[in-house]
Amino acid sequence: MKRVLLTGASGLVGRNAITPLRERGFEVVAVARRRPAGAAETNGVRWLEADLLDDASRRQAVEEASAGHLLHLAWYAEPGRYWEAPENLDWLRATVLLTREFASAGGERAVYAGTCAEYRWGGASLLSEGSPLQPATLYGVAKNATRQAVADIGQGLGISTAWGRIFFLYGPGEDERRLVASVARALVAGEPVATTAGTQVRDFLYVGDVGDAFAALTASGVEGAVNIASGEGVPVSRLTTLIGEASGRADLIDAGALEPRAGDPASIVADASVLNDQVGWEPKTGLAEGIAATVDWWKAAQPNTVSDE
Amino acid sequence: MKRVLLTGASGLVGRNAITPLRERGFEVVAVARRRPAGAAETNGVRWLEADLLDDASRRQAVEEASAGHLLHLAWYAEPGRYWEAPENLDWLRATVLLTREFASAGGERAVYAGTCAEYRWGGASLLSEGSPLQPATLYGVAKNATRQAVADIGQGLGISTAWGRIFFLYGPGEDERRLVASVARALVAGEPVATTAGTQVRDFLYVGDVGDAFAALTASGVEGAVNIASGEGVPVSRLTTLIGEASGRADLIDAGALEPRAGDPASIVADASVLNDQVGWEPKTGLAEGIAATVDWWKAAQPNTVSDE
Repeated sequence: MKRVLLTGASGLVGRNAITPLRERGFEVVAVARRRPAGAAETNGVRWLEADLLDDASRRQAVEEASAGHLLHLAWYAEPGRYWEAPENLDWLRATVLLTREFASAGGERAVYAGTCAEYRWGGASLLSEGSPLQPATLYGVAKNATRQAVADIGQGLGISTAWGRIFFLYGPGEDERRLVASVARALVAGEPVATTAGTQVRDFLYVGDVGDAFAALTASGVEGAVNIASGEGVPVSRLTTLIGEASGRADLIDAGALEPRAGDPASIVADASVLNDQVGWEPKTGLAEGIAATVDWWKAAQPNTVSDE
Repeated sequence: MKRVLLTGASGLVGRNAITPLRERGFEVVAVARRRPAGAAETNGVRWLEADLLDDASRRQAVEEASAGHLLHLAWYAEPGRYWEAPENLDWLRATVLLTREFASAGGERAVYAGTCAEYRWGGASLLSEGSPLQPATLYGVAKNATRQAVADIGQGLGISTAWGRIFFLYGPGEDERRLVASVARALVAGEPVATTAGTQVRDFLYVGDVGDAFAALTASGVEGAVNIASGEGVPVSRLTTLIGEASGRADLIDAGALEPRAGDPASIVADASVLNDQVGWEPKTGLAEGIAATVDWWKAAQPNTVSDE
């Protein structure tokens, strides 16, 4: 049976990749610093606790997993801090060494989480994998340099690599400091919410679909950069409107009360044709459906949110 | 007066860049972990001791230097180990953070030491800056990823950056575990030397010229990758022959006694036209002259060799 080493398995995308990987016939070795409470050690899913920033711990996890595939999602993702945090460079280092160790242990294909923040933002056209790169944050710089490094290593050591550039995601379990989660949590709690006019257009994908798309990319033979996105832009105001509708508390939203952030690009939307045509993957969850599921999750009032690593 | 922060100032290239930088009108703030014994605190040269891998020490050096130019040569360079050492990634991290800190402190132009090991080796043609990149070692991978990262940062923060790809160098003070130094040291000491047939062709540049070329690149406005090389290939056997002649002990060389290293490329030679035409720099020291100076240095029997950082 194919076996995949999944890092960041307790994170938002990682948790949503486990079942899709199982569905594609992978035995999953799920790595996290701490195995999440309640994480099932079901048939075909094994949890390993490891600190990937620690060389000995990381090497041991790779050896124990002895996997042919790697889906590496772990990274520093502290909301508000991750854009400029030096920890991005610690993850660059760990990712490069992980790739070499994975190849030495017999690994054959590795897939990584990149970001739309590698692209030059500000243009009106769709961002395709060949669009100009110009990361404006240390997060984007570190991801882009990591992409370069793992592609070089893959070429040198003869392993197949792909780089999934995540655009904007939302869904159950998201950290409450992030946009959709913060609005959903507040409305469900009956608290007023001030937002910008929300005219900026973004490419949002439901987190269950993000996990599924990464599983499909991992199972495919597609190499290089691949946008992980819906390919459709929506104004951010559409999201808050949908959250208002799903929660029945649209009255609590004060749209336009906040000034837009200076320099926020008008549009960040992916060309998803590589994902659609080469990987053969399409989104399964529409925006209204995904938002409703997210609001339901907040209604169930799960107080614990989980970081992305 | 223009001021340059020179890192790796006690290293082989760094020591050879100080005078050329002074000649081009730079005040030099020379950074090293330890100021070399006998290093002159002459007019226009100030030494700072700092550990660039330590965040606080590095930041303090950048602030104290308050320089408009940066020539960053420091890197991990332990002979035999540096090709695959994880320390390459520590230097990647330090170089990225140094670049941001330099820009924050008002820096305007930064020049870095890259390597011919970023290129795909094995072809017969000259390696120009646009030739395919395919580093086969962690050293090359880390340098190439650093190049990508500092170019991204430069673009984002509006500082001018250039990346000088060093080919093969030799000269006085080189670590005795490296080719020219090991042969010169042995012949001067009257010891026999076994070599390969030396048919592989390489692009060698005298270390005084390497330092001078970096100073010229720093003073120029040329951006992006620039080969730091002679543009001329010579068989390695030519070097050992010249060392034999200069030392008067050609009789001690047993050429062809060693097998060539498996996979050693037949030719690694630069197209130096960007350096020649855009930077406006040409080599000053011919091979026979440079080898003679190197042998003289070993005759003077300076027992202390210095690492590249």
